Amino acid sequence: MSTLFSYQQLYDFAHGVFQKMGCSESDATIACNTLLSADLRGVDSHGVARLSGYVRLWDKKRINPSPSIKIVHETPSTATIDGDAGLGLVVAPFAMQVAMKKAEQVGTGWVAVKNSNHYGIAGYHSMLAAEKDMIGISMTNASPLVSPTFSKERLLGTNPIAVAIPANEEPMFVGDFATTPAANGKLEVLQRKGDEAPLGWIQDKEGKGTTNSHGVKEGGAWLPLGGTREHGSHKGFILGSVVDIFSAVLSGANYGPWAPPFVSYLEPAADPVGEGLGHFFGAMRVDAFRPAEDFKNHMDNWIRRFRNSTPVNPEQPVVIPGDPERAMEQERMDNGIPLLPPVIKDLQEIGQRFGVDFS
Amino acid sequence: MSTLFSYQQLYDFAHGVFQKMGCSESDATIACNTLLSADLRGVDSHGVARLSGYVRLWDKKRINPSPSIKIVHETPSTATIDGDAGLGLVVAPFAMQVAMKKAEQVGTGWVAVKNSNHYGIAGYHSMLAAEKDMIGISMTNASPLVSPTFSKERLLGTNPIAVAIPANEEPMFVGDFATTPAANGKLEVLQRKGDEAPLGWIQDKEGKGTTNSHGVKEGGAWLPLGGTREHGSHKGFILGSVVDIFSAVLSGANYGPWAPPFVSYLEPAADPVGEGLGHFFGAMRVDAFRPAEDFKNHMDNWIRRFRNSTPVNPEQPVVIPGDPERAMEQERMDNGIPLLPPVIKDLQEIGQRFGVDFS
Repeated sequence: MSTLFSYQQLYDFAHGVFQKMGCSESDATIACNTLLSADLRGVDSHGVARLSGYVRLWDKKRINPSPSIKIVHETPSTATIDGDAGLGLVVAPFAMQVAMKKAEQVGTGWVAVKNSNHYGIAGYHSMLAAEKDMIGISMTNASPLVSPTFSKERLLGTNPIAVAIPANEEPMFVGDFATTPAANGKLEVLQRKGDEAPLGWIQDKEGKGTTNSHGVKEGGAWLPLGGTREHGSHKGFILGSVVDIFSAVLSGANYGPWAPPFVSYLEPAADPVGEGLGHFFGAMRVDAFRPAEDFKNHMDNWIRRFRNSTPVNPEQPVVIPGDPERAMEQERMDNGIPLLPPVIKDLQEIGQRFGVDFS
Repeated sequence: MSTLFSYQQLYDFAHGVFQKMGCSESDATIACNTLLSADLRGVDSHGVARLSGYVRLWDKKRINPSPSIKIVHETPSTATIDGDAGLGLVVAPFAMQVAMKKAEQVGTGWVAVKNSNHYGIAGYHSMLAAEKDMIGISMTNASPLVSPTFSKERLLGTNPIAVAIPANEEPMFVGDFATTPAANGKLEVLQRKGDEAPLGWIQDKEGKGTTNSHGVKEGGAWLPLGGTREHGSHKGFILGSVVDIFSAVLSGANYGPWAPPFVSYLEPAADPVGEGLGHFFGAMRVDAFRPAEDFKNHMDNWIRRFRNSTPVNPEQPVVIPGDPERAMEQERMDNGIPLLPPVIKDLQEIGQRFGVDFS
């Protein structure tokens, strides 16, 4: 049902489209590196399938293709950045570079970002730091889809957190997760198949748990990680709240229900409490705590001990965070990235509109 | 069934006991402030009920009552601290003060601690920073009780995370949670009553989900927050892992299954990979990102919007993290702290042994 496209082919296409939207050549490159990392790592909802969404937001003038990204406040270990309504795909790597530079100078760097947009996959940004012997942290707030425990209003996004930690001989540890029981893309898969959702993922518009996979679209909401109060949903609510506060209250972006929608057919709040969407990044040099070789050797030991722990089912070993995505990246780089017919149609239409070849 | 004791009475008693163990007057004060905060805030498992546990570890020479706590590695924004096997109740506030001093100087401070012991409630330490217009972060690794998703070995502790965030007119936001579906103390309550545990909290020794509330004691394990893979337990596993790595791999403490047991009748691992238990602390000055008044006013707005959101059940409004514990603190400061008969008996025995009056 899906067709395979090479990484290079999709990269070149997206690169052309971003430039036609008005991005500089270098910004288009940064945006493509971020966007395509999602396709390679198997997070299909955040890759080229989202390109048409960015175009529609640009049509509505909600994305500025040539932003002047600026540090508006700083200390030796912190900065607040105004993304000037740019693509989050471009603003976020800029912010992570600032965090890493601060870390080089004083051990750690922490950057809050306002006035940004959807930034692709959280994990990509955290990995930029881990490649330089730093622990990388990345989080963002997002369109409101999640109800706090006991509420029937949607007040939080699926607000992901990523942490990338370097090792020595082992590949880096990369945890990257939405603070809900599952990612929104999983619900879309169930909807397409006409399947039910597991109880504990979502609630209906009255706030009752439901297995209706269309429940969120029909006025319900995602539940926080934990699902029910008895199973710790108040902890998922805390996590989503911390992501929202670090990303948006620290930076001066819109928080909670004021976070701007990712889709162009929903207008941003008429009474904003800040500017655009917010992100938060951290970089900690591991040698700011102990010699880098010591740290990385112990990370190898940590990873091996966990990977080799006794499994419940011998055919399903323990999964080290980042392992499946890295395997997928290799597989798709070698064999191509599968796209579904509606995504292909979308990209063909964009190609025709902008005069960029998509074959 | 329980008897009420005044805060001051329990404080004076614990203060006397810590001094008899060999703590200096000032260390005993720091330890009591930390320990009793748990009793006040309703986390009964982490308050004076644990005093006899500290005494037994001291009997085994696993707690050093007069530690020389030292910074062993540092940069302008980071430090690694050797707790010299001291009480975590004393080592942790020392470490948080170092983090706060770094934050005063360069915007943020981050401190990893090795060679420590049980540090009381995570939230207490994070609140020290929030009282000074900083965001406070506190986490610790712990005795292994939790199995990673797909494993039947206990490789992680209940590894709590606390984040305290200051507001202006509203009281601070304090999220403080174990990275499991519920706290271990909740399971002990079910055991005492002979009740079953909710499915999704624990697994038996074969790795099968069980409602047997004695399951962990009988060779099973806690599940990570999320409970089952379908409900996101791999995310709880990531969280517990990040706490373990930040607390112990960064600092040089024992990580994963090597983390030393909290109980004196279980010996630490014969092949340690580090020194003692580990903690991790962060302090971020809010004015390192934007003017403090702006931040705190927006936090007021955030808290009010969430507190006043439409509840599913009008009788159960949304709970802002920290609200219930603060109400409990006021109530117990006014009316006393309830202790159960076995705890009272324990304290009486300690009192007799050390010649400290417990009436």
